[in-house]
Amino acid sequence: MKILVVGSVAYDNVETPEGKRESQLGGSASYFSIAASHFTEVGMVGVVGQDFQDDDLKTYESHGIDISGLEVVEGRTFRWAGDYLQDINTAVTHETQLNVFADFSPTLSEAHAAAPFLFLANIEPSLQLRVLDSMAQRPKLVACDTMNLWIDIARPSLADLISKVDILTINEGEARQFTDEHHLPTAASELLDSGPSTVVIKRGEYGAALFNQDFNFAAPAYPLAKVVDPTGAGDSFAGGFMGYIAATGDTSQEGLRRGAIVGSTMASFAVEAFGLDRLRNLTPTEIEERFEAFVELTRFKPIDSSNRLPLR
Amino acid sequence: MKILVVGSVAYDNVETPEGKRESQLGGSASYFSIAASHFTEVGMVGVVGQDFQDDDLKTYESHGIDISGLEVVEGRTFRWAGDYLQDINTAVTHETQLNVFADFSPTLSEAHAAAPFLFLANIEPSLQLRVLDSMAQRPKLVACDTMNLWIDIARPSLADLISKVDILTINEGEARQFTDEHHLPTAASELLDSGPSTVVIKRGEYGAALFNQDFNFAAPAYPLAKVVDPTGAGDSFAGGFMGYIAATGDTSQEGLRRGAIVGSTMASFAVEAFGLDRLRNLTPTEIEERFEAFVELTRFKPIDSSNRLPLR
Repeated sequence: MKILVVGSVAYDNVETPEGKRESQLGGSASYFSIAASHFTEVGMVGVVGQDFQDDDLKTYESHGIDISGLEVVEGRTFRWAGDYLQDINTAVTHETQLNVFADFSPTLSEAHAAAPFLFLANIEPSLQLRVLDSMAQRPKLVACDTMNLWIDIARPSLADLISKVDILTINEGEARQFTDEHHLPTAASELLDSGPSTVVIKRGEYGAALFNQDFNFAAPAYPLAKVVDPTGAGDSFAGGFMGYIAATGDTSQEGLRRGAIVGSTMASFAVEAFGLDRLRNLTPTEIEERFEAFVELTRFKPIDSSNRLPLR
Repeated sequence: MKILVVGSVAYDNVETPEGKRESQLGGSASYFSIAASHFTEVGMVGVVGQDFQDDDLKTYESHGIDISGLEVVEGRTFRWAGDYLQDINTAVTHETQLNVFADFSPTLSEAHAAAPFLFLANIEPSLQLRVLDSMAQRPKLVACDTMNLWIDIARPSLADLISKVDILTINEGEARQFTDEHHLPTAASELLDSGPSTVVIKRGEYGAALFNQDFNFAAPAYPLAKVVDPTGAGDSFAGGFMGYIAATGDTSQEGLRRGAIVGSTMASFAVEAFGLDRLRNLTPTEIEERFEAFVELTRFKPIDSSNRLPLR
């Protein structure tokens, strides 16, 4: 098992201009692990209730995901309900039922505690910290995600967490909220000063901006003809990004750049259908072709001896 | 003279978090022509009042800009006042005084009417149409810009104009407003259907997205440590973009891609200082280095035989 993810597993009720789904399999750990599973072996740590469907367990298993860390406990699975009817890029939350997630206390098996790569998906920061502390040794690379709620109610433990990770993935609005700085490069710079060597700012339809002490990288979003369901786009990005890095072991600048494009590739697939419908049915050829489409989307001729700029 | 621009010449009162300037030289034609002048010979058509300063005329002339089409008439120069205090990316307009611009009726000299490239900067669409109709022959490439006001009050003539140009540059919000379509690739697709072969959507701090019938291209914004004054960023983009294309004559896909990066380069300089302060003092080396910084900002390794994706 190359990469361990701890995060939420959920049933979502989602409505978008393209339709409506009830009790659709979701949660940060689901999107992350299905996206990452196309590249590497994933172990998942999370909790579900007794209402969790066997078919959904089989979805993970059919992608080679190690679900030995997915506890099934008494009660109902975490549920989220929301819509994207006003603006396809912004979720309006109707309801969040923590259910079995309220008492979640992740414990790691010996195999999981030895994972060389770790992604702490969006859950309460003290739980993310606990998982990090439970690792047998410091993984080669630790990344975490978060959300506005924890900035509001758990800022000290979130700051502690951020000081201990290698990579922070965070939404644009959350980066601004956490730093109280509107200008994004300045916000990213403050976040870099607080611990991580890399900050990935997720900008939804504008793609992702990667800030590192040594370089910046801009990954655009793929201009899809239609966005069906944006739920899980950020976690799918993280799954592609970290899955690529874990699979190659390449934590260099080149690995991070390519990983960000793999992440954007997986995010672009995620939003093409409801829930995990597109991510779970991808072929290697489809993934390669979309990655190459990002090459086409961004390529231009650099300056060389036969291609100067026509400067006066 | 390679490229002709018709647009506004203005004195702006601007306030940003970085300071305040009174009667600063601005206007769409000013930003466009100074940016483009680093690459090619520019002719400017516009109007100013008797309050227009000799020093400002000299600014154009020192950049080799042909200002024989800049009429000086009785009255005051067009004036705009605004601030970016709430949000550095969004101007709040305090006042617009059309002044001599109210009765502006552009007429072209023979030399200007023969220009091979034409940029119709943001003015009333019927004036843009009149200039286009006054050209001796159809230029190789015609681009236009516009603004929300004309979508509101002059939609039919704007639609007529858009149907006649090769390239439309338009803000993201204006593209949505004009098409009544929130999803940008769909909005761009509708705009492409209405005439232009290329639509450049300007997204401010997110860069620019170029949509063409044959390809899409994403140009990021340069992550500047500080934005001093965003006024004129879009026109500076257009100046770099069109200036590059006019100088090279390269209207191919490769030319458009590179032109968009040159445009982003010039926009990134424009916002680093108040008004034209940075654009007017650029050296060729600075421009080349910033262009190369965009190469660094966007490069990643494509798939090749020694660099496959690690797909399972």
